[in-house]
Amino acid sequence: MSRSKKHLGDFHAQHSPLGAFSSFTVGLPGSPGGFGHALSGPANQNVYVGYRKSSRSKWNFLPFFAPPESNESAFTGEEATTAVPSDIKVLEGAGLRRKLGWASDTWNNKDETFGFSLLSPFGPVGDPGRMKRSEKRKHFSPHINGWIEYDNRDGKSDVELLFGLGEEERLFRPVQDKDPSLFGFAINRGCGYATLPSEHVTARQGFNVLDPKFQDRRGLHVVGGQTALVFNVPAGRKMKFPLVLGFFEQGVITDGIECCYAYTEFFKDLEDVLRHGLYSRKQYETLAAKRDRELERSKLTEDQQFLLAQSTHSYLGSTQLLWRQNAPLWVVNEGEYRMMNTFDLTVDHLFFELKYFPWAVRNVLDLFLSRYSYRDRIYDGNGTEASGGISFTHDMGVMNHFTPKGQSSYECDNLTGCFSHMTMEQLLNWVLTAVCYAEKTGDQKWLKANEKTLRACVRSMQRRDHPVSAKRDGILKFDTMRCKRGGAEITTYDSLDISLGQARNNLYLAVKTLGAWILLESAFGKLGNDKAERTAAKTANLLANSISEKFDADTKTFPAVFENDNKSLIIPAIEGFVYPLFLGISSAVDRQGRFSTLLGQLSEHMNQVLKPGVCLDAASGGWKISSTSTNTWFSKIALSQFVVRNLFPEVVNASVARADQVHADWQRSSGCGAYAMCDQIRSDTGEACGSRYYPRGVTSILWIDE
Amino acid sequence: MSRSKKHLGDFHAQHSPLGAFSSFTVGLPGSPGGFGHALSGPANQNVYVGYRKSSRSKWNFLPFFAPPESNESAFTGEEATTAVPSDIKVLEGAGLRRKLGWASDTWNNKDETFGFSLLSPFGPVGDPGRMKRSEKRKHFSPHINGWIEYDNRDGKSDVELLFGLGEEERLFRPVQDKDPSLFGFAINRGCGYATLPSEHVTARQGFNVLDPKFQDRRGLHVVGGQTALVFNVPAGRKMKFPLVLGFFEQGVITDGIECCYAYTEFFKDLEDVLRHGLYSRKQYETLAAKRDRELERSKLTEDQQFLLAQSTHSYLGSTQLLWRQNAPLWVVNEGEYRMMNTFDLTVDHLFFELKYFPWAVRNVLDLFLSRYSYRDRIYDGNGTEASGGISFTHDMGVMNHFTPKGQSSYECDNLTGCFSHMTMEQLLNWVLTAVCYAEKTGDQKWLKANEKTLRACVRSMQRRDHPVSAKRDGILKFDTMRCKRGGAEITTYDSLDISLGQARNNLYLAVKTLGAWILLESAFGKLGNDKAERTAAKTANLLANSISEKFDADTKTFPAVFENDNKSLIIPAIEGFVYPLFLGISSAVDRQGRFSTLLGQLSEHMNQVLKPGVCLDAASGGWKISSTSTNTWFSKIALSQFVVRNLFPEVVNASVARADQVHADWQRSSGCGAYAMCDQIRSDTGEACGSRYYPRGVTSILWIDE
Repeated sequence: MSRSKKHLGDFHAQHSPLGAFSSFTVGLPGSPGGFGHALSGPANQNVYVGYRKSSRSKWNFLPFFAPPESNESAFTGEEATTAVPSDIKVLEGAGLRRKLGWASDTWNNKDETFGFSLLSPFGPVGDPGRMKRSEKRKHFSPHINGWIEYDNRDGKSDVELLFGLGEEERLFRPVQDKDPSLFGFAINRGCGYATLPSEHVTARQGFNVLDPKFQDRRGLHVVGGQTALVFNVPAGRKMKFPLVLGFFEQGVITDGIECCYAYTEFFKDLEDVLRHGLYSRKQYETLAAKRDRELERSKLTEDQQFLLAQSTHSYLGSTQLLWRQNAPLWVVNEGEYRMMNTFDLTVDHLFFELKYFPWAVRNVLDLFLSRYSYRDRIYDGNGTEASGGISFTHDMGVMNHFTPKGQSSYECDNLTGCFSHMTMEQLLNWVLTAVCYAEKTGDQKWLKANEKTLRACVRSMQRRDHPVSAKRDGILKFDTMRCKRGGAEITTYDSLDISLGQARNNLYLAVKTLGAWILLESAFGKLGNDKAERTAAKTANLLANSISEKFDADTKTFPAVFENDNKSLIIPAIEGFVYPLFLGISSAVDRQGRFSTLLGQLSEHMNQVLKPGVCLDAASGGWKISSTSTNTWFSKIALSQFVVRNLFPEVVNASVARADQVHADWQRSSGCGAYAMCDQIRSDTGEACGSRYYPRGVTSILWIDE
Repeated sequence: MSRSKKHLGDFHAQHSPLGAFSSFTVGLPGSPGGFGHALSGPANQNVYVGYRKSSRSKWNFLPFFAPPESNESAFTGEEATTAVPSDIKVLEGAGLRRKLGWASDTWNNKDETFGFSLLSPFGPVGDPGRMKRSEKRKHFSPHINGWIEYDNRDGKSDVELLFGLGEEERLFRPVQDKDPSLFGFAINRGCGYATLPSEHVTARQGFNVLDPKFQDRRGLHVVGGQTALVFNVPAGRKMKFPLVLGFFEQGVITDGIECCYAYTEFFKDLEDVLRHGLYSRKQYETLAAKRDRELERSKLTEDQQFLLAQSTHSYLGSTQLLWRQNAPLWVVNEGEYRMMNTFDLTVDHLFFELKYFPWAVRNVLDLFLSRYSYRDRIYDGNGTEASGGISFTHDMGVMNHFTPKGQSSYECDNLTGCFSHMTMEQLLNWVLTAVCYAEKTGDQKWLKANEKTLRACVRSMQRRDHPVSAKRDGILKFDTMRCKRGGAEITTYDSLDISLGQARNNLYLAVKTLGAWILLESAFGKLGNDKAERTAAKTANLLANSISEKFDADTKTFPAVFENDNKSLIIPAIEGFVYPLFLGISSAVDRQGRFSTLLGQLSEHMNQVLKPGVCLDAASGGWKISSTSTNTWFSKIALSQFVVRNLFPEVVNASVARADQVHADWQRSSGCGAYAMCDQIRSDTGEACGSRYYPRGVTSILWIDE
């Protein structure tokens, strides 16, 4: 893929190891960033990256800092000075090139003599519960690698390169004070950066990183907030210097369930991490290059590649591998909200996680069952109450606090909109996630052990349809009594209008329910449970017919909600078919097969909605998940694009296809890009309106194997 | 002391346990504050304290929050709402009364039905290295107590009281999830507040603390950043509810020397601290009341009482008791700079510390000797170099990073001003601190063990006067070669003009040197080392004569620097006499005794300088430590006031005495008060220009026993 001007866009990227809930965020022109742990968005450190062609030249810097008032004046009582001199050149516009790879982020100057790169490699990882220590150190080291380089082969003077960070409030300390095999700076024991000590590198610390007025015997002033490493590239040489950025959060980190970070079990401290990252950098560089190459050689367009790469970067930043009584506990935090293992994200992340670390999916399913499941009573909104069945909470807590057994951080009572309960949605999510896990991995043992739970899920799904079997049509009609009378269940599309927000009689949820029955049929088949298999098959058919009957032959569309004469049109009508497609359950996705009527209707529906002014935004051309809301979600667009292209290719026309560029431009502009990957976006303006710094965009992994 | 309008001033106060380097800062009208650990200034949490007279009345709140945009909109995608409703009344002006006691801070409404109080008790504490666990828990629990109360005996409706905190970025968790004997909220495992569970109290958490739209089954919404406890006071009752605010920083907290907080050795976690604080509150309340009473019954004026109380509050916030391989390690952090055990603060804190916890002084002296001493070469600025002797670094590190052996965080090379070396100053500081410790405690064993070091200090002092004994006059003439040629030593008055900044031929430092010789004479006497005693006595006399000779009989003043025709006039000319005064070495402070000439001259000097336009600021009337700088330091003023009143009472006139009110008003105005206690202040405007959030004001403890 050639370098493109698009990749110079206004966006931060999260550079994150797997499982550390930490990011080194950088990239938005004019903005600081840097090291952050468990934050809702980018940190606020100056990031200094630059070069000068000789000691008499101006410094050229990447635009990653906002000159702060230095804290020098607090000491001297004199007027304030800035931490960065003004006599520098900021590389921007045509003077700078950026390339976001799947596992890398690289900046070059115009003639490509200068380069700076940060890597976030990822790949298949085995179950850490069964891993040797050395393997754990390899896969879960909380560091990222990078480098800074200059090709001075044509140069007549020595070139200086600079990489540094500044934060006045917490201050940095020289890591070489503690470990002479490292050369760099750290904030307390929690994060830091280093390179290899050599005669080519010197360290700087002071109130002003380029012009430190005050220097101790080794040239530093450790009361100053600005730090840097300065590398010398002699005339005639091309040199590349490794960088390592590490994180380390010690001790018990969570409450409710007390856990530490897994990495604290096999790394002693930050210096151990930095050493490991620096001295084992080759394997990480190789892995990052492999992923980059894979994406570049894929059939994805440049825009699609960018979207998947940016999504993956933000996903990694939300991942958290905890350690609880000698066993791993996997959490994905929900971006800016930092809710833990939000189940409606788990069900979207599974396409990525089952490809690279399926044990994480199982780990989450097991904890949902053991701690975050509950049994409820249900209610039809008209006075009929009945016993319900098993379901699962929306999430497991928020901000490192595991909520009590059977309770989420999100769900509240007496509501009909945002923050209401999502009982049916999460019930389906357990079923779909469980069957996807079992089928993709072939883990029959786990499936067998959970057969009882799957059957409890079946009974729960049936009763929510109707406690009286004769009255069932497959569609949700009963809400959990956790909502209380007057309240109503919602779906994961909580912040949209009623077209997607209401759970009962909801088209999206009905088709998703169909997806769950199709997967249950398959799973019970594999389990040899003929009776349950037949029930699932029968219910799938019944439900498919029920949905079909809602089709409006005049408009050739389905209403989003099967009541109150709802006229909204939604793209996620087809979302439920992603699961049989993903698992290759061909009978269910055969356009001429058992669901041919419904699939035909959905094709017509999609043909109608994927039009400008309906579910293609009239202003931007981007996909709107509902015709009646300008709040659209990238992760769900990506998922639906996969279903459309594979199941309904006939609806793909030029304006549909062009949307990728629109979606990529949203993320490349500061309205989203200021918060790295964003999910909830205004379809007309491309501005994020929620779900910033967000992991869910990795549904776009579905594209890679299309 | 009656409640005074002055005490409604614009100032934050730090509410801090001993040794936790943590503060709950609150008080500046219109400003947030809250829990902070190791910060350079106040935290940024909303603090909600208020009441309403019935469920239909408006809430009355203390002015401790800035209504933030709530994070609700991030979830709902809708427009932002504020976290606090506007329909409240903020108590201010005549509607609010505040009283800062020595160990308390109390707010009342006008009719005193409502009250809110935070305590920071302190008192004599034994050596934690020899303490039982239960004693350690008592003295070093990282919590503060408080209460909220209402006298509703005349009321017709139930009154509601509210105490709460808000922070959107880190979020709070309900502590009752973990410990049902507590009722409150915590941020992760690091800080939190609680009360006793009872039928009178309910908890709230959400995006808006007064009107939480969303509530889970227990009425909370844990994804919301605003939290509160609401207390019900039935009509006809007077009720007072205890509050506890706790801190807990786990694990290794420092580098260079790896230490944890001492309290982690005898408290399990934050809940353990909160429980202890709540259920043992009586003893803390009693101790706080005792200190409050002591100050109120002292002879200090209201302004002086305020200054000592505010100083003590900020001092406690900078204290840090660490634990290192089963032994205590005492640190006082330097306010906003957070340098560790800055020696020129130690020598000022000793008056407070020797009164309450003298082991802390010994602890610091021992670490200065073992790790932060060095031997140098010296230089006279004219080409003569010689071997020097022992001295000590300016500090032990910064921001929880202990610098390497023999190096401070502050001192840099090749300088003649701020950030240069303070070799002579710190040498004197070790001598003065050591002798004060030994004499005040009577710890002869320690004195004996350190006799060798005292003798090394003597030799070092002599050589810095002049390596050739015949050329000695007692005054510093040689700088450390650590400054390098071209550099020059400075004094602790680093940010002032040359009048106090330059070490060589400096009046302040010469008289301080005299103080050191007087103390050495006394110490060697106690050690029975007659020879050394005689040497010290002789040198003291020599030096006193040398200083006397600098007196300008025409102007009746001493120049601040004995060279270059310096004309600055300084108050700290008398600082060195604080030590014999403090130790009651009567022969040295006898106006008719051996130093009568010098003391007489100093009296004349002080009489000249304590005049408006000289060292009383022409605009404000406040004390200026130098006639040629508007940068004045409260801690040093307080110390000099003690010396003036006790040694030179004849110079105290009305304008001198009135200055206390000026100094108090500085601290009660937002120019200082925004950062709690401040030390470096512009004498004309009363605005802080450095040394904010600062511990050194406790030199005012000297006043209490006058």
